[in-house]
Amino acid sequence: MRITALSGGVGGARYLRGLRALLAPDDELTVIGNTADDIWLFGLKVCPDLDTLMYTLGGGIDEHRGWGRANETWGAREELAAYGVEPTWFGLGDRDLATHIVRTQMLQAGYPLSAITTALCERWQPGVMLVPMSDDRVETHIVIADEAGGRRAIHFQEYWVRLRASVPVLDVVAVGADTAVAAPGVLEAVSEADVIVLPPSNPIVSIGTILGVAGIADALRATQAPVVGVSPIIAGAAVRGMADELLAGLGIENSAAGVALHYGTRADGGFLDGWLVHTSDGDAVGRLNAVGIASRSVPLLMSDLTATTTMARATLDLAAGLSR
Amino acid sequence: MRITALSGGVGGARYLRGLRALLAPDDELTVIGNTADDIWLFGLKVCPDLDTLMYTLGGGIDEHRGWGRANETWGAREELAAYGVEPTWFGLGDRDLATHIVRTQMLQAGYPLSAITTALCERWQPGVMLVPMSDDRVETHIVIADEAGGRRAIHFQEYWVRLRASVPVLDVVAVGADTAVAAPGVLEAVSEADVIVLPPSNPIVSIGTILGVAGIADALRATQAPVVGVSPIIAGAAVRGMADELLAGLGIENSAAGVALHYGTRADGGFLDGWLVHTSDGDAVGRLNAVGIASRSVPLLMSDLTATTTMARATLDLAAGLSR
Repeated sequence: MRITALSGGVGGARYLRGLRALLAPDDELTVIGNTADDIWLFGLKVCPDLDTLMYTLGGGIDEHRGWGRANETWGAREELAAYGVEPTWFGLGDRDLATHIVRTQMLQAGYPLSAITTALCERWQPGVMLVPMSDDRVETHIVIADEAGGRRAIHFQEYWVRLRASVPVLDVVAVGADTAVAAPGVLEAVSEADVIVLPPSNPIVSIGTILGVAGIADALRATQAPVVGVSPIIAGAAVRGMADELLAGLGIENSAAGVALHYGTRADGGFLDGWLVHTSDGDAVGRLNAVGIASRSVPLLMSDLTATTTMARATLDLAAGLSR
Repeated sequence: MRITALSGGVGGARYLRGLRALLAPDDELTVIGNTADDIWLFGLKVCPDLDTLMYTLGGGIDEHRGWGRANETWGAREELAAYGVEPTWFGLGDRDLATHIVRTQMLQAGYPLSAITTALCERWQPGVMLVPMSDDRVETHIVIADEAGGRRAIHFQEYWVRLRASVPVLDVVAVGADTAVAAPGVLEAVSEADVIVLPPSNPIVSIGTILGVAGIADALRATQAPVVGVSPIIAGAAVRGMADELLAGLGIENSAAGVALHYGTRADGGFLDGWLVHTSDGDAVGRLNAVGIASRSVPLLMSDLTATTTMARATLDLAAGLSR
């Protein structure tokens, strides 16, 4: 069986650890990682979602934080701050820095991000094929109100990390998305998969930006394989992160059903066949089933690998029941 | 009084800490730092001598090692090694990395190394004007025998750090020295100084490469100010580092007097007016005095700041007695 997932960082990575546990020896899991929250910091290319996926699946993640490296130290960050170099709000750990240094050096040597990701994964052995959505630069900018009552766009990381998503979102713009091309293998991974999975990642700034790369959403609409997902929203709040603020800012219904309807039914030109919601969101099940999105409510809290694996099994079971 | 010193790393930096302690409020100490052992590592510009000078004089040095930062950690280096990225033999600490990151980013923004050094020193406040010998790339390569009996050139750092100066030196080549131009202020610092000091730095790969930059040696020959130095060799061995191996490889007499004669008397087209040797090398005093290099033997072991300051005072006393 070939499974392809479209994933953001922390939530997606944890979920995929459960999904990976279900793979038979001949199964293949390809993960298309969001790169629109990538950022150049101090001359280094930082890919937060790819790294979170790589570290989580490769056993190097800080389990408590959910991002960055285990046993991390922060000497370089302290020194950069002492030099007065901006930004000081991004958490670049010393071990993590090595990844960005290797990546940047390879970029400067002319390798595309997809080849670099493969090279980095040779060390981490994540047990999945990890592919960036694009080798081209796509960057999520968040439009917020400025002090003078106008609008200004800031990098997603500045909104997310520095401002902690505490200001209203007026718009989300994926700069570069109009010209970005899917990385090698991405469109094939979608069109040739037996199952497409959407982990509980942010529907706007993680999965949404992947869908914004030319051809990916079309491939999802075209595939005969079931497309099934897991709600990142439980009882109207993001399980992890601050997705609910973003959804509200974009006029998307902030609920488990709302995210599914945002992806859309096939009848409406969308691509979603199945959707798992948390047990507390049972009311979404009937509503989604009524519009043609097969839905079930199961526990969606990824408290440990067992719970996460159970959740992943429910996803595959849901997909198995969907014939198209 | 204006003092200008030509310095390498560890030994020079320690000596200059003593010299700085003698400065009156109106005195100025300009340090022309060797940059020929600079190296690009992992896409970052590393300037070992400038950093050792800056950290030592700025209070950030690891006193025990003599190089690198106090309270250093090595997470990034461990990770780079885990990625299999070469070289693994260079000691890039996490705190130290921040300096190289800031410097590299400023280089990429178009600033010359001299301006960057000034910017970095704004944090460190070394109490001297630290200037790289050149903004141009000059790189010491060491020619050694290869396995097939031929010759090959390796970067000085590879010879010094990886091979620990354990292989015979066939030649020393300062790549780029033929076209390098002195950094802004360097020639003026030499020609306008009241005293020129040569700290106990390596006469070939530290002070020697500074002298190789167009105009610097000429300015030393032309100045009316006394040029006085401190022997880096005590009883035929380098006090610190492995200078004696290098000297032997180049056919220079491996002694306190030998280094002075290498710089040369003014009568012979050199520029050295005065030279301090260690108390154990008293036999050099008469020999040097006889050829016109005023020499004294004083304790040259920089065991603490008091000893170093006493040594620096002896240097200035020697210079004060030299009228030209």
